[in-house]
Amino acid sequence: MLHPIAEIAKEIDARLVGDGAVQVGGIASPQGATEQDLVFAEDPALLAAAVKSKAAAIITSEAAATDAKTKKPLLIAKQPRIAFARAARIISPPRRQAAGVHSTAIVHHSAKLGQHVSIGPNAVIGEDTVIGDRTRIGPGCTIGSEVVIGRECYIRNTVTMYSRTRVGDRVSVHSGTVLGSDGFGYVRNVTTGRYEQFPQVGLLIIGDDVEIGANVTIDRGALDATVIGNGTKIDNLVHIGHNVQIGENVIIAAQTGISGSSVIANNVILGGQVGIADHVRLEEGVIMGAQSGVPTKKVVRGKGIVFWGTPARPLRAYLKELAVLAKLAKK
Amino acid sequence: MLHPIAEIAKEIDARLVGDGAVQVGGIASPQGATEQDLVFAEDPALLAAAVKSKAAAIITSEAAATDAKTKKPLLIAKQPRIAFARAARIISPPRRQAAGVHSTAIVHHSAKLGQHVSIGPNAVIGEDTVIGDRTRIGPGCTIGSEVVIGRECYIRNTVTMYSRTRVGDRVSVHSGTVLGSDGFGYVRNVTTGRYEQFPQVGLLIIGDDVEIGANVTIDRGALDATVIGNGTKIDNLVHIGHNVQIGENVIIAAQTGISGSSVIANNVILGGQVGIADHVRLEEGVIMGAQSGVPTKKVVRGKGIVFWGTPARPLRAYLKELAVLAKLAKK
Amino acid sequence: MLHPIAEIAKEIDARLVGDGAVQVGGIASPQGATEQDLVFAEDPALLAAAVKSKAAAIITSEAAATDAKTKKPLLIAKQPRIAFARAARIISPPRRQAAGVHSTAIVHHSAKLGQHVSIGPNAVIGEDTVIGDRTRIGPGCTIGSEVVIGRECYIRNTVTMYSRTRVGDRVSVHSGTVLGSDGFGYVRNVTTGRYEQFPQVGLLIIGDDVEIGANVTIDRGALDATVIGNGTKIDNLVHIGHNVQIGENVIIAAQTGISGSSVIANNVILGGQVGIADHVRLEEGVIMGAQSGVPTKKVVRGKGIVFWGTPARPLRAYLKELAVLAKLAKK
Repeated sequence: MLHPIAEIAKEIDARLVGDGAVQVGGIASPQGATEQDLVFAEDPALLAAAVKSKAAAIITSEAAATDAKTKKPLLIAKQPRIAFARAARIISPPRRQAAGVHSTAIVHHSAKLGQHVSIGPNAVIGEDTVIGDRTRIGPGCTIGSEVVIGRECYIRNTVTMYSRTRVGDRVSVHSGTVLGSDGFGYVRNVTTGRYEQFPQVGLLIIGDDVEIGANVTIDRGALDATVIGNGTKIDNLVHIGHNVQIGENVIIAAQTGISGSSVIANNVILGGQVGIADHVRLEEGVIMGAQSGVPTKKVVRGKGIVFWGTPARPLRAYLKELAVLAKLAKK
Repeated sequence: MLHPIAEIAKEIDARLVGDGAVQVGGIASPQGATEQDLVFAEDPALLAAAVKSKAAAIITSEAAATDAKTKKPLLIAKQPRIAFARAARIISPPRRQAAGVHSTAIVHHSAKLGQHVSIGPNAVIGEDTVIGDRTRIGPGCTIGSEVVIGRECYIRNTVTMYSRTRVGDRVSVHSGTVLGSDGFGYVRNVTTGRYEQFPQVGLLIIGDDVEIGANVTIDRGALDATVIGNGTKIDNLVHIGHNVQIGENVIIAAQTGISGSSVIANNVILGGQVGIADHVRLEEGVIMGAQSGVPTKKVVRGKGIVFWGTPARPLRAYLKELAVLAKLAKK
Repeated sequence: MLHPIAEIAKEIDARLVGDGAVQVGGIASPQGATEQDLVFAEDPALLAAAVKSKAAAIITSEAAATDAKTKKPLLIAKQPRIAFARAARIISPPRRQAAGVHSTAIVHHSAKLGQHVSIGPNAVIGEDTVIGDRTRIGPGCTIGSEVVIGRECYIRNTVTMYSRTRVGDRVSVHSGTVLGSDGFGYVRNVTTGRYEQFPQVGLLIIGDDVEIGANVTIDRGALDATVIGNGTKIDNLVHIGHNVQIGENVIIAAQTGISGSSVIANNVILGGQVGIADHVRLEEGVIMGAQSGVPTKKVVRGKGIVFWGTPARPLRAYLKELAVLAKLAKK
């Protein structure tokens, strides 16, 4: 479907320079663009490339556009990436699974499905589970009993939710992810020398607008709850242990692991393969570099400060240590 | 269901102080407890909090109970956590999938199912596979041919077992876990410069009382077997390569990886994100700190000794190195 | 089925010394061999063990065979491991899922299946998807719309492919792997302080002869494509981010992660748990030791050179640093 660029400009709150009648039907990068594509370019160099591309129109910034000479329509936005993301949702909305329950899905008679819910082939929905309006559950998902899923969620293929998991509104979960599994809590019996499982019967509570990647594992609480705050984004293959408390708008990159009972405050950013031991506290706005590690019970403070290494220290100090060591080794 | 606390005390071999007629119907933490919950408190501070909570009764230790003043019944146990875990199994047993084969499960006619076996929706059970009494197989599991699973196992959702995998009794496997996949064994053909797969046709043998987390991968042996010993506990997203031999009562925390042909002796503890290269030997009782790494063919010895860093060295030595380096960098 | 060893020798292009009428029916290691098994032994010590074993015949090298005294037939090959792998494919071919679409599979009427394709129980195949001749799709797989899979692929159980994923010929994918999920691309909206998803609508293109382990995640490109070159082998629990370009014959060991837009040239070898940040470039033939890390935008060069540590440096330099530090700490 084609959209006049003037209409897109209006929807995304951008200032249009050029011919508003030009039509766009897709989004692309400059190098991949066809004559019907909308592209974006944040700085003058990228804008020059976009101008030379086949693209129909360009989303850009005020600064980049100042000296630009082109007949292509420019959509000048305060936040070009945000504007481009919004344009993309208008121009190429994702192909939707049709609403309704697939004939092969197995939905317990006591489950409550909202309006326009979609349940894919071979999905299994347990006893007393509640699913909100317009939520989509993909093929092969297995959703346990007494689960509550909010509205407009998009649960992809083969996602597992254990019983009593609670998920907010507009949550996205990618394939293979397991939510609400038992925490890794064992007690060594000093008489037998064998490990026995400590009860893992708490909840997993996931807020609104949370997005979770593929093959992630998030354990339920032992007695209380594991909590993921609103707006937090979690990449592939991340592990979150039992009783962990994660705040709002936290970013967790791939393969990071957070051990039991740790607290990650709002707006923390965790790079990839970070390891957070148990009972750690990361205060608001801390940034952990990739592969860094925080030992048990440590508290890490400093909004906007980057930490690196294991045990994690401020980036500046860590880089100095690396430099000193390299110098010594060269003698 | 409610249980008189005197009955629980008897079952878990605890000494009761207080009114044995008090009834409990659930377990909880002190902060989450209702008037019908049983809680536990190992030390005087936790006991003080438990006494102030709404809880009906408290499992505690002799030492903590000495000076306690409370009307709540106390159950005094030698190992309060073990006692609490046992009480939990009596008070809130997990909701059981009903025995029987779900109408949508696909069980090969040659498969042999024991007494009271439960096979969930859409599970697939292969040719000549044998499943022991009271074992539960969750929805969406795909169990290959000639697999042998013991008694009272609890295999959650969407678990894959490749053909000829052997699993002992009372084994728990969480969702998304893959058992018996091909090892990562390739040979570079010097003529073509391309990699060819070395045969990966051995077995995977898992002992009794093993517990395996979610989205774990354990490869089968190449020609011989990968072996996981009795009582070993494996957390989420762990990788175990081909021909690895793991002993009894080994603890492996999340996201740890063990490469091909390594040997992990009894009672070893591996923290999270530990990396063990191939052909390594960890002797009995070694403790590897989180994110530590052991290079190829190394032998690590020392019962109860903690190792840290990559390459892993005794914790004491490693901490001294860190201190020396930090001091140099401050000059 | 039994095969005369003379026939095997001919098929694998090995020189036969001894009785060609001896029959073999399986492959094994020397310690596990029965009287009908073929084993391999690359060096004199292994050959001595193989000679003492019960094995029927031995694949070995010219050098190892020179002084060997045995009545067992020897198959002398230039590349004994390659020869053994080929013999294995003749002697014990994997048990094949029968061709045809299982009655419980859900194949969209617009999907195009080649000759002798096998679709397992409960597999779901989407709209306009194309599957090449002799490709096998295992039970529980969910293959999206407009996916293209080549010929002779072996897709195991519960594999997810998102829409428009493209897979070459002779590709092997193990269970639980997710191909084509959304990349981890978010933009912070400076007005609201919240993260919004950047479009993740590109492709995932996988070449020929690629082998992918279990529970791997490979994201699609944001606007362009994520690309995996021919002959590349990927171990379990690996993460590959959006827009990553991986060359040919690359080896990626378990739990390694590669962030968005990085380029891994041909013949690179990545050990286990390696972390590659975004926009990194690893040039041809670089070898990254296990757990090493490369920070954002770095270029690493050096065919056959091993790098270790985080940030990764040449192995020689890194080992010297470790030695210097250990020495200082001992003072």
